[in-house]
Amino acid sequence: MNRQELVNLIKERQSYLCVGLDTDLHKIPRHLLSHPDPVFAFNKAIIDATKDLCVSYKINTAFYECMGIRGWESLQRTVEYIPSGLFTIADAKRGDIGNTSTQYAKTFFETYNFDAVTVAPYMGRDSVLPFLSFNEKWTIMLGLTSNEGSQDFQLQQSGDEYLYEKVMKAGMSWGTPDNLMFVVGATQTSQLGYIRQLVPDHFFLVPGVGAQGGNLQDISAQAMNKDCGLLVNASRSIIYAGNGEDFANDARAAALQLQQEMAECLEAKQTLANS
Amino acid sequence: MNRQELVNLIKERQSYLCVGLDTDLHKIPRHLLSHPDPVFAFNKAIIDATKDLCVSYKINTAFYECMGIRGWESLQRTVEYIPSGLFTIADAKRGDIGNTSTQYAKTFFETYNFDAVTVAPYMGRDSVLPFLSFNEKWTIMLGLTSNEGSQDFQLQQSGDEYLYEKVMKAGMSWGTPDNLMFVVGATQTSQLGYIRQLVPDHFFLVPGVGAQGGNLQDISAQAMNKDCGLLVNASRSIIYAGNGEDFANDARAAALQLQQEMAECLEAKQTLANS
Repeated sequence: MNRQELVNLIKERQSYLCVGLDTDLHKIPRHLLSHPDPVFAFNKAIIDATKDLCVSYKINTAFYECMGIRGWESLQRTVEYIPSGLFTIADAKRGDIGNTSTQYAKTFFETYNFDAVTVAPYMGRDSVLPFLSFNEKWTIMLGLTSNEGSQDFQLQQSGDEYLYEKVMKAGMSWGTPDNLMFVVGATQTSQLGYIRQLVPDHFFLVPGVGAQGGNLQDISAQAMNKDCGLLVNASRSIIYAGNGEDFANDARAAALQLQQEMAECLEAKQTLANS
Repeated sequence: MNRQELVNLIKERQSYLCVGLDTDLHKIPRHLLSHPDPVFAFNKAIIDATKDLCVSYKINTAFYECMGIRGWESLQRTVEYIPSGLFTIADAKRGDIGNTSTQYAKTFFETYNFDAVTVAPYMGRDSVLPFLSFNEKWTIMLGLTSNEGSQDFQLQQSGDEYLYEKVMKAGMSWGTPDNLMFVVGATQTSQLGYIRQLVPDHFFLVPGVGAQGGNLQDISAQAMNKDCGLLVNASRSIIYAGNGEDFANDARAAALQLQQEMAECLEAKQTLANS
C-alpha cells in the first residue's frame, strides 16, 4: 500500500486506528479452546467485528512465535484473512547485518505479504536499508518507545541530542515519508510535539494507548500532521475488552469508541476535511 | 547449560568455535534440493562433520523464517539434531516491551529449547530482563556489532562514553556472568582489548571471523579471559567452504583449521591449561 492509499483510507473511515493482535492463548475466551486453531478463531472474530472501524492490523509476532509452528500457521491464516485494502503490520522488531536483514525483509514482505514491519535500529544503516528497498512496502523504525526502558538508552544524551533524535534523523536520511514510519510511544507526551517538529512528514505508529496509559487526545493534538500522519495502536484494551461468548461485541464497542474519538480529533484539527 | 559446563567443554575440546548455520536454500549444493527438507539435510551433514570440533551451533533465525512454516520445521529439526551437551544459540536479535519479550524468551528457551538467544538492547531494561529470568539459559545482548552500521549509533558518544559502553555496563547491572553474554564483533579490533577491560568476566559471542574479515589471533590475544570467555562464530567460511558432493568434508576442514588455531591460542595464553 502506498502513502496516498493509506491517507485516503484514513479520510474515508475517519479513523487512524490500528488494532493490535497480541493474541495470547491464555487470555482468549475459554470456549474458543476447542477450536482447531483457537488463536485464528479469536482473531477472525476480532477482525470481523472491527474491520470497518480501523485502517490497520498489527500482528505482534512474539505471541505467535512462542507457539512454534502452530503459531506461525495461526499468523499466516490471520494475515490472509485481513481484508485487502487494510494496512498490515508485522510487529517483529527485527534488524541484523545486511544479508540477514534482507532475509527478514523477505520474510515479512514476501513470504507473509505484510505492508510493513517494525525494525530495531541499534545495528545502524546497513541493518535498516534492506527493508527500505522493497517497493510499496514500509519500514517502521523504533524511535522513542512507550516502555519505561526507553529511558535507559533512547532518552540518554548523544552529543547534543537524545539518542532517539539521532536515530530518527538517521532514519530520515535513509528512507522517505513514502517508505518509512517511526514508532513513537503514546506515553511519551512530553516529547511528542517536539518529535513532530523534528519529523514533520513521516507517519508515526503510536502504541501505548489503553493498557499502557497513553491518551488519544494528547497524542493527536501534538502529533497529527496534514495527512494525519498517525496510526494509533490499541491491543489489549480492544481485543480483551470482553472475555465471554460475546467478546467480539465488546471489542467492537472499544474500537468504536476509539474511532469516534479519532473522528473528533480529525475534525478538531480540520485534518483531511473535505474541501 | 551453565557456565562451568561450557568452560569444561571448551577445555576438553580445546575449541571455542561456534558454527553458524546461516543456511540459505540458494547457496547449498544443488544435489540436496531433491531432499524433502534440503535445509535440514544440509545442516545435518554440517553438524555430523563438525560436531567434535566446535562447542556451539548458532542458528540465524532469519534464514529459516524467510521460508515460512517450512523454514521453522527445518529449524526445529536442526536444533533437535544438535548433540546434547553442545551450546545452542538462537541468533534472533529479539527485544520488545516486557510482556512481549517474555513471549520471545518462551519461544527460544521453551518451545525450541535453545540454551541462548541474542537480544537487541534499544528498548532498555524491561525489554531484556524477561530473558534473564530463565534458569540455566543465556541472554546474549548486542554490544558492539561487526557491521559498518555499528558506527551510526553504537560508536557515537553518549555522555563521556560510547553508546555500546553504556549498553554493556547496563547489561552487567541486569545480568551476571552466569546468564549474560555480549555480542562483540570480530572486526572491532581497535576496541576489543578495551572492552575486555570493561567487561572482564562475561563471555563474548564474537561473529565476523571469516567472511566478514575478523582475525582469530587478534581477537583471542585481546579478549580471552581466564575461562576463555569467548565463543567465536564462523558461518559462511565453514558451511559454504565447499559446494560439491563432498561439501561436508570441506566444512570439516575449515572448522578443523579454526579449532587448531584456537588450541594454539589457548596454549599461548595458558588458558584452561591442565594444572
